[in-house]
Parts: sequence; C-alpha cells; structure tokens
Amino acid sequence: MTDFARTRAMFDLPDGVIYLDGNSLGPLPRAAKDRVARAIADEWGQMLITGWNKAGWMDLPARVGDRVGRLIGAAPGTVVMGDTLSIKVYQALASALELRPDRRVILSDTGNFPSDLYMAEGLCRTLGPDYVLKTVAPEAVEDAIDDTVAVLMLTEVDYRTGRKHDMANLIARAHAAGALVVWDLAHSAGAIPVDLAGADTDFAVGCSYKYLNSGPGGPAFIYVAPRLADHVRPALSGWLGHEAPFAFDLDYRPGAGIERMRVGTPPVLQLAALDAALDVWDSVDMSDLRARSLELQGIFIERVEAACPMLSLATPRDPAQRGSQVSFRHTQGYAIMQALIAEGVIGDFRAPDILRFGFTPLYLSPEDVTRAADILCDIMATGRWDRPDYHARSKVT
Amino acid sequence: MTDFARTRAMFDLPDGVIYLDGNSLGPLPRAAKDRVARAIADEWGQMLITGWNKAGWMDLPARVGDRVGRLIGAAPGTVVMGDTLSIKVYQALASALELRPDRRVILSDTGNFPSDLYMAEGLCRTLGPDYVLKTVAPEAVEDAIDDTVAVLMLTEVDYRTGRKHDMANLIARAHAAGALVVWDLAHSAGAIPVDLAGADTDFAVGCSYKYLNSGPGGPAFIYVAPRLADHVRPALSGWLGHEAPFAFDLDYRPGAGIERMRVGTPPVLQLAALDAALDVWDSVDMSDLRARSLELQGIFIERVEAACPMLSLATPRDPAQRGSQVSFRHTQGYAIMQALIAEGVIGDFRAPDILRFGFTPLYLSPEDVTRAADILCDIMATGRWDRPDYHARSKVT
Repeated sequence: MTDFARTRAMFDLPDGVIYLDGNSLGPLPRAAKDRVARAIADEWGQMLITGWNKAGWMDLPARVGDRVGRLIGAAPGTVVMGDTLSIKVYQALASALELRPDRRVILSDTGNFPSDLYMAEGLCRTLGPDYVLKTVAPEAVEDAIDDTVAVLMLTEVDYRTGRKHDMANLIARAHAAGALVVWDLAHSAGAIPVDLAGADTDFAVGCSYKYLNSGPGGPAFIYVAPRLADHVRPALSGWLGHEAPFAFDLDYRPGAGIERMRVGTPPVLQLAALDAALDVWDSVDMSDLRARSLELQGIFIERVEAACPMLSLATPRDPAQRGSQVSFRHTQGYAIMQALIAEGVIGDFRAPDILRFGFTPLYLSPEDVTRAADILCDIMATGRWDRPDYHARSKVT
Repeated sequence: MTDFARTRAMFDLPDGVIYLDGNSLGPLPRAAKDRVARAIADEWGQMLITGWNKAGWMDLPARVGDRVGRLIGAAPGTVVMGDTLSIKVYQALASALELRPDRRVILSDTGNFPSDLYMAEGLCRTLGPDYVLKTVAPEAVEDAIDDTVAVLMLTEVDYRTGRKHDMANLIARAHAAGALVVWDLAHSAGAIPVDLAGADTDFAVGCSYKYLNSGPGGPAFIYVAPRLADHVRPALSGWLGHEAPFAFDLDYRPGAGIERMRVGTPPVLQLAALDAALDVWDSVDMSDLRARSLELQGIFIERVEAACPMLSLATPRDPAQRGSQVSFRHTQGYAIMQALIAEGVIGDFRAPDILRFGFTPLYLSPEDVTRAADILCDIMATGRWDRPDYHARSKVT
C-alpha cells in the first residue's frame, strides 16, 4: 500500500493552506529545491560547458522522459521531454497528418483545452486550405469518427468539468476508421492510471507542472508509439532531434525513434526540478492513488452537495467518468473562488462559471478535503464572497 | 567607462579555469543562484498558483524581453522571451513567408547554424513542394538576393569562424528586392553592439545562454519590427499568444503586437535565472564591451600566431568583420581542445577542425587571455595533446 503520509512529508506546503489546485500547478517537492541549487552551483557553476557531458544534461530529456513514461504505461525509450505542451501538440499533429497523406481532417471536441485547438488551427493554415479542424461536443466524438478523419486529437480529462473520455474505446474506433490518435494527458499524467501501450495509442503529449509537480513552466513530454517512431518526419526538425547533432551537417536526418522529437537545447534547470519531483512517485502505486483520489472526490462532492445546493456539480457523477478533479458551477464563481483563496483554500476558476478543485492524494488527506468543503459551504451560506475586491479580475484566473 | 573588474566580481567562476567558452554557455552570475532559490522557495513554494499574478510570472517573458531588447537596439514592447531558438526561427520564418505570399524562397548561407537550416527545411516541407530553402556560401549571399526571395535568413556571426555579416547592408539589399529578413543573433546578443531598429530589421531571434549568461537551456527571444507585429499571423498559435488567454475561447485571435509570439507556459525558473543574469549588464556600455573584446581577441591572435604556426586563423583578420570569438583550424583540433580543457583553458571544438574561443570582457582580462594563449602554444610545442584519451570523442563536443 502506498504510504500517503510519507508522500505528504515530501512536499513544502505553506502553513494554513489547503491546496486544491495541484491540477494547475503542483506544489514544491522538498527535493526540487536542493536539486536545482546543485544544478546551478555544482553543475553550471563548476562544470560550465562540460556539464552537458559530465552532469548528463544532454541525456536528461530521455532519462526523465523514461521516468514519466513509467507513470503513463509507456515503455523506456518512447517518451522524451522538452518545449511546452502546445509545441508538443503541434509536433504530434504534424507527424500524424503526414502519416495519413490522403486525409485532411483533424477531429477534436469543444471541451479540449483551447491551446490544442489553436495549435491545430495554426497547423491547418500552414498546411493549406484543404486542411480542417473539426470540433464536436465531447459526447458526439465517437459518432463523428469516419474515414475522412486523419487524426483524432483529444484531451483525456476535460480541464473544466473533469469528465474523462474512454480512451481505449475511442482509440479502437479511430483505428477501425483508419485514423491516428493524439492524446493530451495534461490532466491525466500523475492523476489517473494511464496505459498508453496497452491502449495502443499513436501519440500522446502532456505537461509536467500539474500533477507531476515540476514547477512553473516545467517542460512538456511527447510519446510516440514504437511502431511509428521511426516513420515520423518531424515538422519541427531541430538540431537535437538530428541523428548526429554535433556533426553539424547542413541537411536534417532524423535521430533514432523518439529522439527525433527533440528540438532545441533542453531547459536544464526546469528538468532538474522535474527529476527531483519524480522521486515522490517512486513509492506510489497508481491504483492506490486512483482509489484515494476517488475517496477524496467523494467526500467533497457529498459534503458540498449536502450543504450548498446553490452550487451545481459539473463533473460526472459516475466515478469511472472522472479524472482527478471536481468542478461546480455558479454564475458568481470568480468571486466565490477569491473568497475561498482568501480563507486559505486554493482552487481555481475557469470562465465562464466553473469552480475547479484538484484532488491530489500525494499531499491531501480526507481531513483537508472535509475542511475545504466546510469552508466553501460556510462562505456560500454567509454570502461573504460578495465583496467588491473579490469581483475584481486579475490577469491570470 | 564600464568597470570590467566590477562585472568580473559578479560571476562565480571555478578556481584555476580560464573560460573561453562563454559563446557556448555563459558562466554563473552570482545573483542567479539567489534569484532562482527565491523563485523556488518564496514564489513557487509559498505562493503556489497565485505566483502567476503575485510574483509577476505571467509578465516575465515581456519584462525580461525588454531588458534583452535594450542590448540589441530594440524598443520596449518589441521583444518577448520563450521556447528555444529553433522554435523562434520557425515562428519568424513562418510569419515572414506569410507576409510574402507570392514568393517561395528562403535564402540562407552554408555558414548558418545547422538547426536554423533544419527548421527551415521542416517548414518548407510542411508548406508544400513549391517552397525551397536555398543556401549559398556566406560571401555569395549579397549577389543571391533577387525578387524570388521571400525571406533572407542569416546568423549575423558565424558559429564556427566568427565571421560577421554586414547586417545593415544586407537588410537594405533584401528590402530593395522586396524580401524580408530574419536575423539569428545567437552570437551577437551581448557579444557586439546590435541596432535592430536602426538597421530596420524585420525579425530577429536569439538565445540567452551564451553571452547573456542565463544558464543551460535558458529561453530564447524573438523580435518583430513594430510596423509588422500587428500583421503577423503566428503559425505556432499557442494560448499565451491569444488576445485573451483566460477567456478560453475556442477560436484563436492573436494578441497585441509582440505578445502574439508567445506560445505556451513560460519557463519561470529559467527566466528568473536570466532576469538575474541581466543585472550584470546594467552598468555595461556596449561600445566599451566591443573595444575590450577586440583588444582581447587581438592579444590572443597575435600571441598564438607568433608561437603556433601550425594553427591557422579561421576568423577574419579585419576586426570589423569579426564577432566576439576567434577560431583556429587544425586537423587534430578535437584532441588539442581536450588537452587545453584538461589544463584549465576551456574553449570548444566544432567539426571538422575548428578550435573555438569566445572573448567575453564581462569576466575575462588581458592577463587571462595571454595565459590561455601561452598554455595553448605550449601544448602545441610539446605535442602533449597527442594522447589516446584526448582523441576519444564524447557525446557533446
């Protein structure tokens, strides 16, 4: 059994805060502080340029990628870190489209994270007027898969509602129609069990700063199925994806397998933070994590619904259809969330009316969640969210 | 006058090392260590998600971009940080090509950094069979500019030889032919005076981990001329380049001006390191820096040529045609460089035969450079570079 008291002790959390926003930015793992300090003082400071070899910086994207891969059912050598999630979406989509040269449609849903849709839009414009991004409602995706679809691009867990797609089923449907799939695991990696290889995924991408706790702006990851990796021609053909980067050839030749999805110089300090953050996961069993997450979600939903009838559940009631977050709707959601944050319960707000709460067993207990629900319901009962300063919007919501 | 003893004191450099590779990876500015430690402990650790507002993380790419802009002749609001240099090359090229819809040629030279050429290749493939990347010898660029050229893409200072293009002249020639220009300033920013606005550049890109000392994997920058910025349609249309990222609209609408060149979540820890590294530049006058750099280069060239006739100068003899590095050729350059590094003089090797030395007045004195030349010449005179372990290649050269 995973010892969640032990994982809790591996994080630095501010006193008096119940943090229900680890689905947006994970908190600080204690080990990350020292690891980055060492990367700066002992590696960068002392090794200087030789750190690329001596400190293993050049291998970090693949080595750390393997550690992330273990959490998402990906074999060693099939995941590599780098860039941002948006860039990785572009890479995966461009590669997938090139593998289906006779098709022109990217199919996605309106619950996808907007940046994924924007990147697809930009790629379609670059590819030419025949290419289209088609979006349908999340529940209409399955029926919209037909033999015009080149790529099905979905985020497994909806960033607003927490609704989880049935990945294995949709992959089977897409493959039966001759389409490839690109899965965004932003709200899956470290949140729920994922079995990329078992589900026969083609491409997957994700970020590391949410449930994997790599810190603000940590690097993204990309997975390519081993059966495809050597056939992919990267559109973003950067030198570190070259077969021999330090030969400085004038022509691009893709590197072996997943290495070709690297682009430019890796962000060593952010990778060091992620590498340390992944230590927490060494003792975690993903099915224990899932059970604990659903337990925490259940407590929260039950308690809030019992005491706050003015909040309506936006997340599916069936636990099997949920990720690791719970959302409620309220037209005054923004102000309510500001009041909650002011009282030490940090969740976040997503326009137009979503109060979003992430459940992260690594550092949240049933007692934390009970207390958070009670504070929320008290704020609602007393109406103390209705203050002018709570209505004033800040830049980042 | 710039006080270079004062700037030297702002760096942590290992004892006994003369570092002539700041053109590859700048050394550690003392302030960066503390700044990153604060970003981790006080911002990420204590503010958690609220750091995006409270610690100003969301504004870092523009705020730090303005600080870089000051060093390259770019007005506030015309430079933004993010991604890697390769990604920024792709963005600039894609934008430039879209502004010249009736042309199909990217013109570059064989001395350009290979990743720039690779990214252009990948973009041409994505755009379709009509698009071509044409490369000519550096000295043939001027004559190759004609009215088929959509974009002239050059690196101002050659990464191997240190040869510097005449930027203002080539821009004037390109504009006269109706072409746009994309300049890679990887070996210019912080190395030589650059006047982007004065030279009427269209696009410029660069990295921060060389002469700007941001640390391994620090973010890149992109400049777009204000007269173009609102007409550019980003191909890499990520959410943070959206007019209203937190409205989470399903359709992309580019943000105002340079903001639209942002893509995904910015690497806050690497940006914090860069922000601190830029403090060193507050007291530096770029013409003082240039004069000191040429003084250091002159000492090195004279001393090496006098004592090491077997090394042949690869860098132009005319100081006006040089950047801030000096290169020598030798067929055994790799082993010679390993011997030098073993004796505390760190430069680097670039295939097939280039010994490369960066001259960085912020932390190098005439005495350092004299001593480095003497050690190099002694290694050559005694032949002590010719050991089996010095011939064994490591992954990163």
